[in-house]
Amino acid sequence: MPKKYTVTPWEVSGEIDYGRLIKEFGVKPLDDKILNRLEKHTGNLHYFLKRKIFFAHTYFDAILEQAEKGSEFYLYTGRAPSGPVHLGHLVPWMFCKWLQDNFDANLLFQIPDEEKFLFNEKLTFDDTKKWADENILDIIAVGFNPKKTRIFLDTEYAKTMYRHACAVAKKITFSTVKSTFGFTDSNNLGEIFYTSMQSVPAFLPTILEGKPTYCLIPCAIDQQPHFFLTNDVAPKLGYPKPATILARFLPGLQGMHHEGKMSSSAEQTTIWATDTAEKVRSKIMKYAFSGGKETIEAHRKHGGNPDIDIPYQYLTYFLEDSDRLKQIYNDYRSGKMLTGELKGFTAETISKFLREHQAKREKAKGMAEKFMLRD
Amino acid sequence: MPKKYTVTPWEVSGEIDYGRLIKEFGVKPLDDKILNRLEKHTGNLHYFLKRKIFFAHTYFDAILEQAEKGSEFYLYTGRAPSGPVHLGHLVPWMFCKWLQDNFDANLLFQIPDEEKFLFNEKLTFDDTKKWADENILDIIAVGFNPKKTRIFLDTEYAKTMYRHACAVAKKITFSTVKSTFGFTDSNNLGEIFYTSMQSVPAFLPTILEGKPTYCLIPCAIDQQPHFFLTNDVAPKLGYPKPATILARFLPGLQGMHHEGKMSSSAEQTTIWATDTAEKVRSKIMKYAFSGGKETIEAHRKHGGNPDIDIPYQYLTYFLEDSDRLKQIYNDYRSGKMLTGELKGFTAETISKFLREHQAKREKAKGMAEKFMLRD
Repeated sequence: MPKKYTVTPWEVSGEIDYGRLIKEFGVKPLDDKILNRLEKHTGNLHYFLKRKIFFAHTYFDAILEQAEKGSEFYLYTGRAPSGPVHLGHLVPWMFCKWLQDNFDANLLFQIPDEEKFLFNEKLTFDDTKKWADENILDIIAVGFNPKKTRIFLDTEYAKTMYRHACAVAKKITFSTVKSTFGFTDSNNLGEIFYTSMQSVPAFLPTILEGKPTYCLIPCAIDQQPHFFLTNDVAPKLGYPKPATILARFLPGLQGMHHEGKMSSSAEQTTIWATDTAEKVRSKIMKYAFSGGKETIEAHRKHGGNPDIDIPYQYLTYFLEDSDRLKQIYNDYRSGKMLTGELKGFTAETISKFLREHQAKREKAKGMAEKFMLRD
Repeated sequence: MPKKYTVTPWEVSGEIDYGRLIKEFGVKPLDDKILNRLEKHTGNLHYFLKRKIFFAHTYFDAILEQAEKGSEFYLYTGRAPSGPVHLGHLVPWMFCKWLQDNFDANLLFQIPDEEKFLFNEKLTFDDTKKWADENILDIIAVGFNPKKTRIFLDTEYAKTMYRHACAVAKKITFSTVKSTFGFTDSNNLGEIFYTSMQSVPAFLPTILEGKPTYCLIPCAIDQQPHFFLTNDVAPKLGYPKPATILARFLPGLQGMHHEGKMSSSAEQTTIWATDTAEKVRSKIMKYAFSGGKETIEAHRKHGGNPDIDIPYQYLTYFLEDSDRLKQIYNDYRSGKMLTGELKGFTAETISKFLREHQAKREKAKGMAEKFMLRD
């Protein structure tokens, strides 16, 4: 059967078959065994784990081994600054905060400004700088520990990073990036080099502290191809392989069959982190793909399908109360809950979430310097 | 007729036909017209120009136009640090100093440490740092004006350079570096990106000062392929095209037919900047390819051939006195001067030159910080 989706760091489209993607990428599912092992440390599991929003990993067992030995590890994630932050971006960061809190872990937060500059014909470094400044407010709003979190733009930290990126680059040929990313001879030299810069934070504490330091990367699964290369290179440079813990994408408003993830390029149908309650409500009412029946009568009689219903799916990401979620699932499935009611409840849930985010985002203004790492 | 030589930034070999190379590279000869125009400014011509050691250029007329308008331009050259400096390396730097003195020009001196690291399997950044420190002494010994000269290692100046290298890299595809440098899919990502870093100093004053600033690059002709790319990119980024003024290579001791240039890899037969007078004498006596006849009798009768004689060729680089040089040419040609005499005189001339160089090199210790540019 031909694939109906594409997942690369620069393109996510189509109806993603995550089970198939796990096999294709050669990553491991986050099964009960490893989740139980994690729970022994944390005493609880984030609902993203229970609901398989974080669903796969590479080398996460090595991280748990570190934790079991009482050794530290650190977290590394990122945000490429080409526009405002939307709901989907916040998901891995929320999980990253949970990991930071539960393991008291340091976090390196990369802003690969040159990546967006290089891969987007029209974007300038003035644009990426503007968006980096904006996005950093959203990052801080997630609640990372300022004492344990360092945020950096690649171009501002390049004196430290470039030489180590060269050490990575020396171990990767163009053949390899051709097959890993589907690059061709028409890719520009910066696009070709860039993956080396994304590897560096996975090694940086090992390099700077001069002792092997394990790294866990929470991210959406589209970033995994970079970290395959990182893993190939790590033993050649004498560094531990970083682990990844991988999220599904928050689906777009128009449905999982319509687009693989909420996308910044679909302006109208994206819920931005700065959207007002009215905007959230109007977008969900107007655009959210529904699993409900066409008439109230049919819905009452046959019930809706929450599994394809976007408002319901969004609740799995933003409603922490699992009992309530289950009840909504059942009520919608049975026809007791109508599409309008579900949409209204989801709009309210997301608006409440965003109101809190926006209040913390407001407080983040002026705090950025506490977090920034520069040469 | 098939080519018998190769000239790329990473390989120079075979018996180079410089006339053919001019056509092949599409550069211009330094003809009498442009040399006269230069002499109007400087009042004299360096003997490297009279003897066609600097023999070709690109856009040098645009530099002269700046000078004629009373506008400033700056110089940019470099040294990749993979070993000690030999006689051949000093040639473009001596000319660069002459240009600096005559035009009171600023000079950016690049030490592309990552280039050597990337293109040489075994070299580490510890090696390149060690050689950079050594080589900088030789650079300073040439006599550059400390107030007008800035030396930098790419990895130490990467915070400034990397973002501009990305801007260059965005305008060059892999296809282009394949055809320019003969790269293949087996080249590593750093090798592929590197040319972007070599372009940056050709634009940096324009970028940092915010006004078009012309750049003249004195270098050996093997570096020209990089600057073809620089010239392609310049108008796309809104910067003036840099000009180059190009040198032949100092031939290797074993003759012009044997190797294209004095090479660091031919340890024994290379004259290092730190060689003693005895070593210089012994290398010239033992290895220097001679244009003389096999016996003294035959030489006295038929004369030698200075055009292929390495000791004579070296005098064209290191004996400033043109009358004396002409006399030696004639005396050797006629058979009046014997091979042993010529070798002895050349050894003396080079030893005297190196004695002065080494004294200045000794004085350069502790002076490096006056010249260094770092982020």
